[in-house]
Amino acid sequence: MKKARFEAFSDGVMAIIITIMVLEIKVPHGEQFSDLKDVIPVFLSYALSFLYIGIYWNNHHHMVSTVHQVTGGILWANLHLLFWLSLVPFATGWIGENHLSAAPLSLYGCVLLMAAIAYVILQNLIIKSQGQDSLLKKAIGKDIKGKISPVLYLAAIAFAWLYPIISGLIYVSAALIWLIPDKRIERLLRQIEDTPTQNGD
Amino acid sequence: MKKARFEAFSDGVMAIIITIMVLEIKVPHGEQFSDLKDVIPVFLSYALSFLYIGIYWNNHHHMVSTVHQVTGGILWANLHLLFWLSLVPFATGWIGENHLSAAPLSLYGCVLLMAAIAYVILQNLIIKSQGQDSLLKKAIGKDIKGKISPVLYLAAIAFAWLYPIISGLIYVSAALIWLIPDKRIERLLRQIEDTPTQNGD
Amino acid sequence: MKKARFEAFSDGVMAIIITIMVLEIKVPHGEQFSDLKDVIPVFLSYALSFLYIGIYWNNHHHMVSTVHQVTGGILWANLHLLFWLSLVPFATGWIGENHLSAAPLSLYGCVLLMAAIAYVILQNLIIKSQGQDSLLKKAIGKDIKGKISPVLYLAAIAFAWLYPIISGLIYVSAALIWLIPDKRIERLLRQIEDTPTQNGD
Amino acid sequence: MKKARFEAFSDGVMAIIITIMVLEIKVPHGEQFSDLKDVIPVFLSYALSFLYIGIYWNNHHHMVSTVHQVTGGILWANLHLLFWLSLVPFATGWIGENHLSAAPLSLYGCVLLMAAIAYVILQNLIIKSQGQDSLLKKAIGKDIKGKISPVLYLAAIAFAWLYPIISGLIYVSAALIWLIPDKRIERLLRQIEDTPTQNGD
Repeated sequence: MKKARFEAFSDGVMAIIITIMVLEIKVPHGEQFSDLKDVIPVFLSYALSFLYIGIYWNNHHHMVSTVHQVTGGILWANLHLLFWLSLVPFATGWIGENHLSAAPLSLYGCVLLMAAIAYVILQNLIIKSQGQDSLLKKAIGKDIKGKISPVLYLAAIAFAWLYPIISGLIYVSAALIWLIPDKRIERLLRQIEDTPTQNGD
Repeated sequence: MKKARFEAFSDGVMAIIITIMVLEIKVPHGEQFSDLKDVIPVFLSYALSFLYIGIYWNNHHHMVSTVHQVTGGILWANLHLLFWLSLVPFATGWIGENHLSAAPLSLYGCVLLMAAIAYVILQNLIIKSQGQDSLLKKAIGKDIKGKISPVLYLAAIAFAWLYPIISGLIYVSAALIWLIPDKRIERLLRQIEDTPTQNGD
Repeated sequence: MKKARFEAFSDGVMAIIITIMVLEIKVPHGEQFSDLKDVIPVFLSYALSFLYIGIYWNNHHHMVSTVHQVTGGILWANLHLLFWLSLVPFATGWIGENHLSAAPLSLYGCVLLMAAIAYVILQNLIIKSQGQDSLLKKAIGKDIKGKISPVLYLAAIAFAWLYPIISGLIYVSAALIWLIPDKRIERLLRQIEDTPTQNGD
Repeated sequence: MKKARFEAFSDGVMAIIITIMVLEIKVPHGEQFSDLKDVIPVFLSYALSFLYIGIYWNNHHHMVSTVHQVTGGILWANLHLLFWLSLVPFATGWIGENHLSAAPLSLYGCVLLMAAIAYVILQNLIIKSQGQDSLLKKAIGKDIKGKISPVLYLAAIAFAWLYPIISGLIYVSAALIWLIPDKRIERLLRQIEDTPTQNGD
């Protein structure tokens, strides 16, 4: 029961974040396609952020499926994650307003970095709550994607001040890495169901 | 469990899309009914888009009811659909601002077309995941409505540049076609429940 | 299952409607309490509309609890109701902007009237779908509140052009009537559970 | 069933409140980090309000988990609580716009105070509905946090007119108190599960 509300609230917040970003794409007054020119960078940054929130929702969904009991710590770590995700629309809007400028691009990276850190904290609390035989721990394995992402965000923050275009490309790449669906948890869960009493992973 | 969150997130996003569109109807400053004059086209485009999102929610609801397991591909195809639907408020607002102008009308058609394509991709992935005896495949049958809609959107995009009024009428007609409730899936589901082991459709 | 999504979507839309109205209360630039003066009418109309949406959610909740199968007709009648409810924020904002002016007050009544009609249509479809022994039909009984409300809205629309203040008071009264919780359905449901095979009400 | 919708609606409203507040953080037009200067107070008040709504959601979640039957009174008391919470974004926006000014700070306290009162009303109705052996009554115990919070809000309202900075610090402290997770209900629930027929607490 508890977990259901936990998921419902998280889903609600992420669904709202992903949708209200579209309000940043202001309707142009003109009626020509050329009037959409100013909207294009806003649209592109919207599409990228939609992808990032989608990735977070997807991973959150897999991760929480392994949770048995929602402790107080997990609740707060989750709210902490949602807090940083809730700033994505603001950071997205600032990039959209100023195209590939240094400060907006690096702020975007900072928000993503804080969200990534919040995600790791939540992940660790869940693993800890599951004890020795943590299903999540086995499932994430070496967690290469999870470890590489913060590095990419840091690189993008640095490049924002040198070659903004490279910074932008890093953000796109860091998202695309996650598009490859994380089948590790799915696979492990199925494996465990199939072999009831074996512990090998 | 997985499916429940999948539906909850989709419902949340569609509920938000359908509702935030109303924020595009700006409250007029004057206090006469005549001050509502500028609001009328915005209101009409809002009503049409409300209908479209309602149709998508309705069809999505029927389609997902046949899903047994939500795969990674289905998750992403669903997010892809939600992405295009999330642009409906923007396209609606642009029509509302410029009444029956060519560019806004054709952009509206493009967004609907992309959403229709995203819907077909999702539908195909679900059918594929269900294997040979796909319930959804039987249920949609020849999928006449699904095949006619993109053609109508393309026609409306073309007419937008010639006779905008016809373009608008096509959008209205394309929505009304779907209002005839899609009882195929309902009927089939009931039929299958009644005849447990027969495979005929 | 079907009903769960039907409820989730309705809850989502009503939760959003009730909450985004608060965005109409624009933050004043000044920092004195006197700067809130312009906000007061907006706040009052917000409070009234919050109450109305709350009433609709409450009644919807009771009504849908009697539904066994969500038909296509019920789905569309529900969307029709949500459509009119989604216009409440706009009508509320217009009253807030122009205080007790005739046109905004009567528009508010028109939206409430259309929502009330949409509610009756939905109610009738549910009763029809339940056949002869409709639980809902028994539960609503003479439906006095439901019949008196549209009359009050019509009165308020008329008074808006004569004595706006009376119009406003009628809207407040029409809401307060509903505050008296509708225990009829609750009572009947309990009664039926207690007496399994008797048909008297 | 009833309770599920009750929770879903509350979750929805709180998820929207916590998220739309971010719309108050207006994207600056400039592209320098220095352009974010004006955004900082808005950001800080957003972070504080995010924390407050998170606390309410968390406590609401624990409290409602003890509810067996949602009565009409509980429904309305809950809507009353959601009403005051829905004004948090407005009060937050006013503080953000005017930094640590007296009127905005004291309005913020008034909204928090009204929400705290609404919470106590809801709590009392739930306790009353549970009868003599109310689980919730045992669980909240002396309810020290619940009793200290309104006092702190009143203090903050008073200090707003003398030393605004102290007022702000009180709001932060009053939130942090709640961050210490309320394990009382969790503990009690577990205890009761373990000792099926004993009544000691």
